[in-house]
Amino acid sequence: MGAETQMTGAEILLRTAMANGVEVCFTNPGTTEMTFVTEFDAVAGIRPVLGLFEGVCTGAADGYGRMAGKPALTLLHLGPGFANGIANLHNARRARTPIVNIIGDHATWHVAYDAPLTSDIMSLASPVSGWTRAVASPEEMAGSMLDAFLAAQKGQVATLVVPSDCQWSPVEGEVPVRAVAPRPVAAEEAVVAVAKALRAETPPVLFLGGAGLEEAGARAAARLSAATGCRVIAEGFPSRMERGGGLPSFERIGYFSQLARGQFANASALILAGTVDPVSFFGYPGEPSRMAPPDLPVYQLVGPEGDVLDALERLIDLCNAPALGAAEALPVPDAPTGPLTPFTAGAAIAALQPEGAIVVDEAATSGMGYYPVAGAALPHTYLGALQGGAIGHGLPLATGAAVACPDRRVIAFQADGSGMYTVQSLWTHAREELNITTLVCSNRSYRILQMEMARAGVMEPGPLAASLVDLSNPDLSWPQIAEGMGVPGVSVTTSDELVVELKRALSEPGPALIELIL
Amino acid sequence: MGAETQMTGAEILLRTAMANGVEVCFTNPGTTEMTFVTEFDAVAGIRPVLGLFEGVCTGAADGYGRMAGKPALTLLHLGPGFANGIANLHNARRARTPIVNIIGDHATWHVAYDAPLTSDIMSLASPVSGWTRAVASPEEMAGSMLDAFLAAQKGQVATLVVPSDCQWSPVEGEVPVRAVAPRPVAAEEAVVAVAKALRAETPPVLFLGGAGLEEAGARAAARLSAATGCRVIAEGFPSRMERGGGLPSFERIGYFSQLARGQFANASALILAGTVDPVSFFGYPGEPSRMAPPDLPVYQLVGPEGDVLDALERLIDLCNAPALGAAEALPVPDAPTGPLTPFTAGAAIAALQPEGAIVVDEAATSGMGYYPVAGAALPHTYLGALQGGAIGHGLPLATGAAVACPDRRVIAFQADGSGMYTVQSLWTHAREELNITTLVCSNRSYRILQMEMARAGVMEPGPLAASLVDLSNPDLSWPQIAEGMGVPGVSVTTSDELVVELKRALSEPGPALIELIL
Repeated sequence: MGAETQMTGAEILLRTAMANGVEVCFTNPGTTEMTFVTEFDAVAGIRPVLGLFEGVCTGAADGYGRMAGKPALTLLHLGPGFANGIANLHNARRARTPIVNIIGDHATWHVAYDAPLTSDIMSLASPVSGWTRAVASPEEMAGSMLDAFLAAQKGQVATLVVPSDCQWSPVEGEVPVRAVAPRPVAAEEAVVAVAKALRAETPPVLFLGGAGLEEAGARAAARLSAATGCRVIAEGFPSRMERGGGLPSFERIGYFSQLARGQFANASALILAGTVDPVSFFGYPGEPSRMAPPDLPVYQLVGPEGDVLDALERLIDLCNAPALGAAEALPVPDAPTGPLTPFTAGAAIAALQPEGAIVVDEAATSGMGYYPVAGAALPHTYLGALQGGAIGHGLPLATGAAVACPDRRVIAFQADGSGMYTVQSLWTHAREELNITTLVCSNRSYRILQMEMARAGVMEPGPLAASLVDLSNPDLSWPQIAEGMGVPGVSVTTSDELVVELKRALSEPGPALIELIL
Repeated sequence: MGAETQMTGAEILLRTAMANGVEVCFTNPGTTEMTFVTEFDAVAGIRPVLGLFEGVCTGAADGYGRMAGKPALTLLHLGPGFANGIANLHNARRARTPIVNIIGDHATWHVAYDAPLTSDIMSLASPVSGWTRAVASPEEMAGSMLDAFLAAQKGQVATLVVPSDCQWSPVEGEVPVRAVAPRPVAAEEAVVAVAKALRAETPPVLFLGGAGLEEAGARAAARLSAATGCRVIAEGFPSRMERGGGLPSFERIGYFSQLARGQFANASALILAGTVDPVSFFGYPGEPSRMAPPDLPVYQLVGPEGDVLDALERLIDLCNAPALGAAEALPVPDAPTGPLTPFTAGAAIAALQPEGAIVVDEAATSGMGYYPVAGAALPHTYLGALQGGAIGHGLPLATGAAVACPDRRVIAFQADGSGMYTVQSLWTHAREELNITTLVCSNRSYRILQMEMARAGVMEPGPLAASLVDLSNPDLSWPQIAEGMGVPGVSVTTSDELVVELKRALSEPGPALIELIL
């Protein structure tokens, strides 16, 4: 684009974003973002999507960034508004989703007066941002937006603080042209060392993450496995995984270290491809933090920030791994019948999900039945939640995925305790008429904490401890909550009812919610 | 208490809290707080109150701390769980509510492994905390809890990070005895200077905040005003104000600077008592940040952290201000009839609120009709929200106030946009059977932003800008949302219906919600 004159700072920032491919902005703005709000109409190429809570916006940005394959944009209100989005940005950071946050701040000359909404925004933003900057003048708006975009492209959260006077002040300047940050490739010596490890008599484990779980990466890993006998284990919470329809299906690493240790037994080495050395989610008395045995050699082929596919293809060359024939798709599982359990719930989704579905999994303990059988489902994208362990991730993720892919069906497989964290997402599902079918697993407890209590040896918790992991009293009615936000809702108690309602919901446009009483 | 042996670190911390008067803990715990969860039963003197989202817990701690007059306790889950509570801690910091946050962290030896939930907790906590500490050993648990309690007593948020191994490890030691941090008193020269300013021919404005708005402070300020002619103006968002039944009733400072400037006209000086120099909520082009005229002399009698009542009483002595006779209570306003407006909504509450009610006001633009008439209501406590401007404050504040004062009726006067931020509060209202009557003002917009847009000269916003401040499409159904969380809900469209439903709700125990279609 050529030179423009008399734009506001907000306009040139938005035009810079648009010139670099931004089409959507997830936002809950306030007074300090008002110039952005009014300039959306002038720019007329970025669709603002309103969330009723910032955690919805940041989680949606995560889902959007994963599916669109380019940085997602948010617009948030000073420190406290941003703070409401931190938990899901923490998840996005761990998922390495490219996100640019624009935070409106007080006018530069107003900050010193310590007005009510003033706080140390950078201190709040730094823990979840790989890149931060505060704009100091309107002339910096365009260049800073471009820098933020480039930083985000590396698989980071980039956070730009923009004072309101820098938004409303006029500025001259050109909209910077697009630039792309390439992913770093694996070092040659790392590839050679891993190729040697793969040829060992006792095969290693290939621990696969990031883009290694998308279609080309998964096929390359399967080819290496077939040629070398290495065991491929996927990250426990994959950011994005292509599955079904004959694609390779990998076991995930166990959540608890005991399970993971079994997966490493008899391996000669651990190869990290697009991920990091696996560690236990939490530290437990007497247990090691690392999941791999201490004497197992570890090779970092390429980190999460790097080009995993390139590294796997170079390994294929070095190992002379033969091409695999086209795998036949497994038969799609039958729809379940009888009582409703986490296992029949998972089977029902795998049986009925349409081709091209995007399945967002924050079902937590209730989700255990889905992943193992979904490898036989029709081709689909699986978006794991909870990369950073902050609950309230799934419903927003589904929001952003549906905005990015309006022609695909999104299935949000959701636990009840975590679903309540960002329940406001449902309103955006309705407002934007998103094709999201939400299944809430209502076990009316923080079941994972009940399990943790048992692991800690507390088999009969006292009444106070028991009450803190119990979500009954009163029972939530998810259909009522959903309908209160404009999403039709229904409750099911058997697998047969679930199958009927899930078929119906998947056949109709727009959002719907099914509560599974487990 | 004497020496104890073989307590866990979690137990000695809880016992220290209990020995210092803590009776309640607002919490949403996770695995890193599991020892606390199980020790609640062993300690058996601290009632854990579960919130389905951390913003509920921190806002409830704010309401509890204001009403109980002692530090409130929260227990939160690492960085992301804490982050969900930041917005309401930001409000609490501005309200100077005493709060102690306990944040469970990874085991000390697990932090270095950068497990999924690891983040820089101190960077997140510092902007909202006047005091922070990370415990490094179980031996530090009791003393650190006491230090946090003392820090909070000064009207601060105190945040203590407690690794899980410090919780579960055994420790010997004594539970520290109670200590009290007295509030600093005003300097004598400040009191003398203010007394002189009060005797000026043209009276000054007395800008009153903090404890100056509780009963004794308000009576003292009214006595000074009667003797000297000074105009008393209250903070715009009072933390706690006693009103009604013949108590002095003060105008509040205007939200927009134009209004506030009119209140300072003709004053000879500005006296700050228990508050700070008033500044505009936001900076606007061409407008000053300070609300007072630049040439108006300013006297800081005593800051928000100080003993306001003591300072006012010393002024009364210096000024020889005569005691005032008992004021007669104004006649309670009549219940309104006819169409429902923000003015009739406010009048209905003032007319029907029972003696001893606690009215929590986050009604924002819809609340304008309440404050002016509520001075004639029966004696009650008014809790302003939004001290820090972070919306989602009111429903949690009401939660904590009701827990602190089970024998009083709490009325939550709530805007719809902000109410959605922490809507999960309603579930805690039901679970704890709190006597909270919630009135949601459903104007289906971010009305304050519509006003800000008009102030910025945008009289006809474009369709995208208009959509971002519009909460219809779809309309929220607050009764359905409330009933989904166990709170009976009803919707009203006229003042007459409101009066009927409000009378009914106030006459019944437990929570209820009334949606006012405005």
